[in-house]
Amino acid sequence: MKSEIIAVGTELLLGDVVNTNAAEIAQMLAEIGIGVYHQTVVGDNGERLTAAFRTARERVDLVVVCGGLGPTEDDLTRETLAAMLGLPLEEDSSWAHHLRVLFETRYRSRGHAFPENNLRQAMVPRGATLLPNGRGSAPGIYLEHHGTVYVLVPGPPGEMRHLMRDQVLPRLIQHVAREGREAVLVSRVLRVAGLGESRVAELLAPILSSQENPTIAPLALPGEVTLRITAHARDRDHAGELIDSVASRIRRILGSAVYGEDGETLESVVVGLLKEQGLSLALGESCTGGLIAHRITNIPGSSAVFRGGIVAYSNDLKSSLLGVDPGVIAREGAVSAATAEAMARGAAAAAGSDCALAVTGIAGPGGGTPEKPVGLTYIAIARGSAVTSYRNLFNGTREEIKLRTAQTALDMLRRTLLSRETHHDDA
Amino acid sequence: MKSEIIAVGTELLLGDVVNTNAAEIAQMLAEIGIGVYHQTVVGDNGERLTAAFRTARERVDLVVVCGGLGPTEDDLTRETLAAMLGLPLEEDSSWAHHLRVLFETRYRSRGHAFPENNLRQAMVPRGATLLPNGRGSAPGIYLEHHGTVYVLVPGPPGEMRHLMRDQVLPRLIQHVAREGREAVLVSRVLRVAGLGESRVAELLAPILSSQENPTIAPLALPGEVTLRITAHARDRDHAGELIDSVASRIRRILGSAVYGEDGETLESVVVGLLKEQGLSLALGESCTGGLIAHRITNIPGSSAVFRGGIVAYSNDLKSSLLGVDPGVIAREGAVSAATAEAMARGAAAAAGSDCALAVTGIAGPGGGTPEKPVGLTYIAIARGSAVTSYRNLFNGTREEIKLRTAQTALDMLRRTLLSRETHHDDA
Repeated sequence: MKSEIIAVGTELLLGDVVNTNAAEIAQMLAEIGIGVYHQTVVGDNGERLTAAFRTARERVDLVVVCGGLGPTEDDLTRETLAAMLGLPLEEDSSWAHHLRVLFETRYRSRGHAFPENNLRQAMVPRGATLLPNGRGSAPGIYLEHHGTVYVLVPGPPGEMRHLMRDQVLPRLIQHVAREGREAVLVSRVLRVAGLGESRVAELLAPILSSQENPTIAPLALPGEVTLRITAHARDRDHAGELIDSVASRIRRILGSAVYGEDGETLESVVVGLLKEQGLSLALGESCTGGLIAHRITNIPGSSAVFRGGIVAYSNDLKSSLLGVDPGVIAREGAVSAATAEAMARGAAAAAGSDCALAVTGIAGPGGGTPEKPVGLTYIAIARGSAVTSYRNLFNGTREEIKLRTAQTALDMLRRTLLSRETHHDDA
Repeated sequence: MKSEIIAVGTELLLGDVVNTNAAEIAQMLAEIGIGVYHQTVVGDNGERLTAAFRTARERVDLVVVCGGLGPTEDDLTRETLAAMLGLPLEEDSSWAHHLRVLFETRYRSRGHAFPENNLRQAMVPRGATLLPNGRGSAPGIYLEHHGTVYVLVPGPPGEMRHLMRDQVLPRLIQHVAREGREAVLVSRVLRVAGLGESRVAELLAPILSSQENPTIAPLALPGEVTLRITAHARDRDHAGELIDSVASRIRRILGSAVYGEDGETLESVVVGLLKEQGLSLALGESCTGGLIAHRITNIPGSSAVFRGGIVAYSNDLKSSLLGVDPGVIAREGAVSAATAEAMARGAAAAAGSDCALAVTGIAGPGGGTPEKPVGLTYIAIARGSAVTSYRNLFNGTREEIKLRTAQTALDMLRRTLLSRETHHDDA
């Protein structure tokens, strides 16, 4: 099944909003073996929207449209699709009732009547299914028409995600199974940290050059490399077997540089390892300025292992809160292995944690010298009484250097935790 | 001048990478008065790329293509465009020399010869201008052909940005000036915090309903609302005057809720105010987990005003590092106005700063109770001896709650700093 994603909204076209929805929808479709062949962005303009629908209908079997389902005059998706297909719009009485209840309180409290134009959101093209939206007033729409499936979902990412996951994907899986006439396309992403793209390509050269099904597509992202393995097969099970076999070969070659799969992140893997090993963590951050703490605390349940962190941006705080000897800072500099190690020890002591991760560096754009240029960072890890530090030199803008430092620091912590685990297993 | 942005890469199509380049390029084009009418994503596939080029040529005057300029077989943009236009590819000898120098050391050190396929990156369609890339081996290409302008830039965002800013935009400005036959489209974004979209629409109703040139497009983003004002005029100066007039009317109505314009952020405005007022800042974060510190330290030069922060995720650290009385936590709870206020006082004391911002709350998904549900947060601001706190209840996922809390906290700090400024002025 070939699909196209059409994102609707002038805010996307003008770049006010980044089109994260298209990427998320593409990933969800990939999960169920549907390939995306085109992505398009159209503004809130009936004529161009009609043209986009016509083009999509000619080249794919599934058209996913995101946005333009609200109650205002700008929102044209529903009406434009119905008109293009020559289908009348009919009111879904149950959603119309829902909207009346939803808006009644809101408007009554301001002394207004219920604006009837809100009822536009209860209209569906004849033959379509309304998909109730638990988080907003605009429902989704699912329509099969002359061999093409049309899916309409609202633009707010939370509402889109929820409708896609709960209502659209199950219908698409059924649809594909019912058609039953085609092979599936399944893919899995292996995530690699600590090796550059060219090194990964070199190590995997024997596999990459001979590989046709599954295919392997390497991709360099800031601070990591991903390998997308995509298999064509008659069904999902068979595709899974093909992928498993290649993934094992890759893991044998790259070893622990493969840190996870699909949606995993370094922080989710680190939090998982800390939980498994019953260890608590503290952070001492200078140049990353709280980014590592932010990433760790994005993981639900991280409070079970993460005690807290100190963002010691000034030298005073490195001493007063992290107990770094001012003499060390004066002699070695705030950006030095000695300071990073003292920060890690100090963070563990201040938080009473089993281990600690600390970073200090120069994120730029100012503050660099010939001896200590912008991008120089030291990462230190304390575990019990042992402290190890690592020196790095990163390129990029201020935000890129923060990101690369955080990524490398989390990877060093992951490797440290893994080596501990291995020693345990050996013992 | 009508434009289309074509992003090339299977990684975009499958959602492995979010298409931030399209949004950035659209913003840059908007800055110089060029409207984007279509955005398209195509995989690394010659046939579909050719079709996309043909379609774009028929409907716009400027085609910006991003990605697919690398040295591997996947990279088809250069060859496909040349073939579609019937232009031969010719080697740019100066860039070919540059590539040889660039790669020689790299390959020699590994004992390989210089791979000749790298020279593909020195090929340009006849009549095109090669745009040297200071950050990578793939140059950009600028080509005017039968009334259409084609711009090719590499996919890595840093390289794209640098080539667009330094080489493409100046050429496009000249091109538009040379054509001289059309009006410009100029837009400016006003950024609003602390008011919801419906409230903004209500307050601005008299302006919004009567406004035709400039147009005003409101947009709700997490924790803020933007208003894009777009003017059509015969030249940029005249467009600027039209925008100024509407922007002043909006600012008179919304007052200090308008926190900035275009690329400004709450954190950049807050850092600016702190610098102006010669004040230093410390942070005490619980539920935002370092996000506020991360945002503040993203601003170049923030180290002049930001001392540091404490991410006190555990109650122990709230007491040991921020000096919150354990009795207060026991009586009022870790998520309470009293705890937030004590955290703010403690952060200012620990860092020796003039002011401090503290937040505590429940980011979820676990940890909520009927009395203190997920999304409940307290924000406190200490300034000298005065401490004020604010209670909020936010919806959303864990990451959305963190984001909204950080956004509101930065806005409250901004308003506090502004009110201090106003008092000064009044005195």
